[in-house]
Amino acid sequence: MSLVTVGSVAFDEIITPFGESGKILGGAGTFISLAASLLGVENVLVSVVGEDFPQKNLDFLVEKGIDISGIEIKEGEKTFFWKGQYHNDMNSRDTLITELNALGGFQPKVPANWRNPEVLMLGNLHPLVQDSVLNQVEKPRLVVLDTMNFWMDSAWDDLLKVIKKVSVLAINDEEARQLSGEYSLRKAAKAILKMGPQFLIIKKGEHGALFFHEDEIFFSPALPLEEVFDPTGAGDTFAGGFAAYLAKTKDYSFENMKNAIIIGCALASFTVEKFGVEKLASVTKENLAERIKKFKKLSHFNLNVENFI
Amino acid sequence: MSLVTVGSVAFDEIITPFGESGKILGGAGTFISLAASLLGVENVLVSVVGEDFPQKNLDFLVEKGIDISGIEIKEGEKTFFWKGQYHNDMNSRDTLITELNALGGFQPKVPANWRNPEVLMLGNLHPLVQDSVLNQVEKPRLVVLDTMNFWMDSAWDDLLKVIKKVSVLAINDEEARQLSGEYSLRKAAKAILKMGPQFLIIKKGEHGALFFHEDEIFFSPALPLEEVFDPTGAGDTFAGGFAAYLAKTKDYSFENMKNAIIIGCALASFTVEKFGVEKLASVTKENLAERIKKFKKLSHFNLNVENFI
Repeated sequence: MSLVTVGSVAFDEIITPFGESGKILGGAGTFISLAASLLGVENVLVSVVGEDFPQKNLDFLVEKGIDISGIEIKEGEKTFFWKGQYHNDMNSRDTLITELNALGGFQPKVPANWRNPEVLMLGNLHPLVQDSVLNQVEKPRLVVLDTMNFWMDSAWDDLLKVIKKVSVLAINDEEARQLSGEYSLRKAAKAILKMGPQFLIIKKGEHGALFFHEDEIFFSPALPLEEVFDPTGAGDTFAGGFAAYLAKTKDYSFENMKNAIIIGCALASFTVEKFGVEKLASVTKENLAERIKKFKKLSHFNLNVENFI
Repeated sequence: MSLVTVGSVAFDEIITPFGESGKILGGAGTFISLAASLLGVENVLVSVVGEDFPQKNLDFLVEKGIDISGIEIKEGEKTFFWKGQYHNDMNSRDTLITELNALGGFQPKVPANWRNPEVLMLGNLHPLVQDSVLNQVEKPRLVVLDTMNFWMDSAWDDLLKVIKKVSVLAINDEEARQLSGEYSLRKAAKAILKMGPQFLIIKKGEHGALFFHEDEIFFSPALPLEEVFDPTGAGDTFAGGFAAYLAKTKDYSFENMKNAIIIGCALASFTVEKFGVEKLASVTKENLAERIKKFKKLSHFNLNVENFI
């Protein structure tokens, strides 16, 4: 079995300078699993929703090729709900409403036939919930953990414990600074790589993503788009694309992990073009191949260093 | 003759969280010309200093291979002086003192034997001063203009007139937004490329540089450094490296201009490592070649798009 994902499945309501989404399908787990399915990777989503979660949304996930046998439907509860508003720069946002609902007492259960995955993707959740999933699987080749500043503020010790056990940590630039106490991202990376993970991804939103391993650094730009319509889920899409590409190729060399970073950035560049999962759900492999070509044109150059010596 | 540069030669006094520089050699023209000399490009610096400008500084420029016959020494005047303080993030700064001094009534004169350059680099100065230099040279193959928000606020019409005449405009992200009235950098670029220049460079400091031409985009990251010690002059070093590489190679294809962007970013990555010109003055061609290799490792990947179709 290829990829086990644990992550939220939610209702989002998003306000941007371009419009309002109304109540739509969201959640880290949703974006991660959709990205994986787009790459044709067999995957299961471990999550929880409430009674109010419509069958058509479940059908949509199944239709996309996601195994939903890990999604618990909690009786007498509602689905996790988040409402947020983006500022004009589309980089910063205010949370207007967070209702944990069913996610509150979430006790994830990895289905019995999925306990031996190639890759385990721990989406942003309480570190203890992430840890409990880690304990239910047998030696995955790679464990990727996404987290955020909220857990650094509220569950520091638990977070450090689970970070210690994973191969890849994915956080944004401010979180890397908070976690390490270093302002320079290069120094932050050095400090974080001593906390357990062998690989560190620092997500910088519209400024791309940095990838660190030992003394190696790789950087992927974000594709400059005419309009970033809704950044919600971009980081999760990125993480999902990254994890799934590695589950698919089973090549954990730094060179191939660079490719996984590019896949993640390419998929994230679709997510931001429309509200929620709308764009990602309609992307074809041809669209993705086209976009990867754009990343290559954007960042490759043919400068011959020997001319300088 | 290869490269004519017009730009300030100054005294800078810089305060950063790491220390204070005291009064040191600075100025856009100084950084641009030093970058060009490092590439072995024959170049003249058109500028003005006061009586207080020490002979040892002039000797230093000559020793580096810069033709200083275009630097006027103005009697009874002092040299342009700028004092600034960087904040902890090293991205924002406050100007504490600006004394224009000799630069106030600057009337640049391009030496007679330099009126037919391959490339003309117009460093950040009043647009009318830039325009007067443009009028003194005969059809350079490329004209690069660097400017800043100060001139957008104080000399808008003059700036638009000179921008119209140049091939390459180099500004930072906020300036691109101000000049175009567009927030999205992609849209801003589209608007600015209609104002005259065929090429646009958007400098994003620690987030790298974007390069636009028609529908083409190229991006160079900034090298992630353990410590940015002093960003002063990084943008000028970048512009100097860019212009000089093209003056040297005489190849104005988009592919080769990508290389010029990388050269600019690589040279700028040295400038920020010490105060003022200290680091740049000691860089060898071998150092530069080494750094270009780092840029290649940082941004190249071998993902095979055909695998997805």
